[in-house]
Amino acid sequence: MKNILIIGCGLLGSSLVRRISKKKLAKKIFIYEKSKKNILKIKRLKLPGILVNKLQIAASQSELIILCTPMSEYKKIILKINGYLTPKHIITDIGSSKARSLEIIKKNLNKNFFWSSSHPITGSEVSGPEYGREDLFENKWCILIKDEKTNLKHLKFLMHFWKKIGSRIVIMNSKKHDKIFSITSHLPHLIAYNLVKSAQDFEKKQKYDLIKYSAGGLRDFSRIAASNEIMWRDIFFDNKKNISKAIDIFIKNLYAFKKDINLKNNKSILRKLTQTKKVRSKIIKLKQDINKPDFGRN
Amino acid sequence: MKNILIIGCGLLGSSLVRRISKKKLAKKIFIYEKSKKNILKIKRLKLPGILVNKLQIAASQSELIILCTPMSEYKKIILKINGYLTPKHIITDIGSSKARSLEIIKKNLNKNFFWSSSHPITGSEVSGPEYGREDLFENKWCILIKDEKTNLKHLKFLMHFWKKIGSRIVIMNSKKHDKIFSITSHLPHLIAYNLVKSAQDFEKKQKYDLIKYSAGGLRDFSRIAASNEIMWRDIFFDNKKNISKAIDIFIKNLYAFKKDINLKNNKSILRKLTQTKKVRSKIIKLKQDINKPDFGRN
Repeated sequence: MKNILIIGCGLLGSSLVRRISKKKLAKKIFIYEKSKKNILKIKRLKLPGILVNKLQIAASQSELIILCTPMSEYKKIILKINGYLTPKHIITDIGSSKARSLEIIKKNLNKNFFWSSSHPITGSEVSGPEYGREDLFENKWCILIKDEKTNLKHLKFLMHFWKKIGSRIVIMNSKKHDKIFSITSHLPHLIAYNLVKSAQDFEKKQKYDLIKYSAGGLRDFSRIAASNEIMWRDIFFDNKKNISKAIDIFIKNLYAFKKDINLKNNKSILRKLTQTKKVRSKIIKLKQDINKPDFGRN
Repeated sequence: MKNILIIGCGLLGSSLVRRISKKKLAKKIFIYEKSKKNILKIKRLKLPGILVNKLQIAASQSELIILCTPMSEYKKIILKINGYLTPKHIITDIGSSKARSLEIIKKNLNKNFFWSSSHPITGSEVSGPEYGREDLFENKWCILIKDEKTNLKHLKFLMHFWKKIGSRIVIMNSKKHDKIFSITSHLPHLIAYNLVKSAQDFEKKQKYDLIKYSAGGLRDFSRIAASNEIMWRDIFFDNKKNISKAIDIFIKNLYAFKKDINLKNNKSILRKLTQTKKVRSKIIKLKQDINKPDFGRN
């Protein structure tokens, strides 16, 4: 048991700090946080870690370094700590897009060092250390990336680490990861943002006050569309090729559906509306959601 | 206090039965239900109403008739009860689309009878009397339709009725209603169905088992896409003109967003992602959702 450095202490970073402390997984937990607002919150919350000013020293004194910042910060951080690392340092991140960010990492990290990427499938529409919770990762998937040059020893270490954090582990390569999450996560968020924008466009044009009638569907999308904008900009830019393909598949389906309703194609519409229900049953069977009706949150 | 007839006793119909009984709003509550499966459930649940076989007799003996069936059933029901009604009968429905369904009603209902349409903004992804709840309408909007020929006495009666049911009342014409709900409700549902379909298409093509990673966004859409297919087919067909326009606005936004991410237009993307957050704050301020972070349902 050695030291762990958490870089970026928002929702996920602070949840890791809480969990690592509770499970006694480190001798010392170092926290490096750039935002003054977050630093004040971390102090007020009395998070069980040591706030550090000098990233380099904390990095050199840690066995495991976990980047929990937006992906656009990775390069700057690597350039800062490069000179203080060794090939023994286990470095990982929790970013939601992999192939492109790993290219940037590879380009900037010193040649003989290793980076093994992680993606815990959890989160919320809120950001900041005050929302973190020790059980955020409990029974959630954590994808570990295994590409050609992944250090298998480090990968094994991370498998053990995330299991202790409470996650269920899946290993896949970065290309497959980015394809899957372009559909299951990136496209849904992009759609939520654009649906809310469409409602705003419509409201402006029609001068109708429609947001107050959002309980019939729009409300749920607005929650997703309230997610952190820096994090999501980074994901959209980083995985733009796969996301563009996903948008194309989706628009094709929208056009076909529009045609179906305009032609009153009863058979086709009913087939589509019943087929999609099967996915719901599958999601509940796979324990990705609970089988309890949602009547809105009161 | 006279008799009330509920035609169609699913989620909303059965919730009305429960509420009317609890608040003692009727002498007798008649329930007419076509589905044998639902009839068995209603008996097992011991719902506080009288199950009737003869729709016509129950209609003639009721002061207020509320249709809680899919909209495609209205015509058949009107043709059955036309001969047993008087101009004093207050007839309403709870359908989610108005202009087109009111045309069909007007065409089939005897000339001197009145129909005043209602739309309580509530529901869930589940259907059936077993899911109904007495407080389903509590503090939810109920839109009452006022068009040129609406009987104002009946409208006033319905205002009092829905207030006792727990709803907050708004009055608007059918045209405005259909425009607003094409954006706040019909488009979100259509999108949810098509996102889930896109995930299915992708899964088939790529042979990836992606549903198990749905916690990052897809899960929430799949819930909405599990809603009753007959009800939603009727809404999509009935309000197809407004929904088609809404699809067009939305696709235009999707194309612009795709362009932004491919050109890495940082300024435009950040503006869009932060603008949509404002809608979220507005929704919470208007009490259409609670300000409690969602970490997924465990």
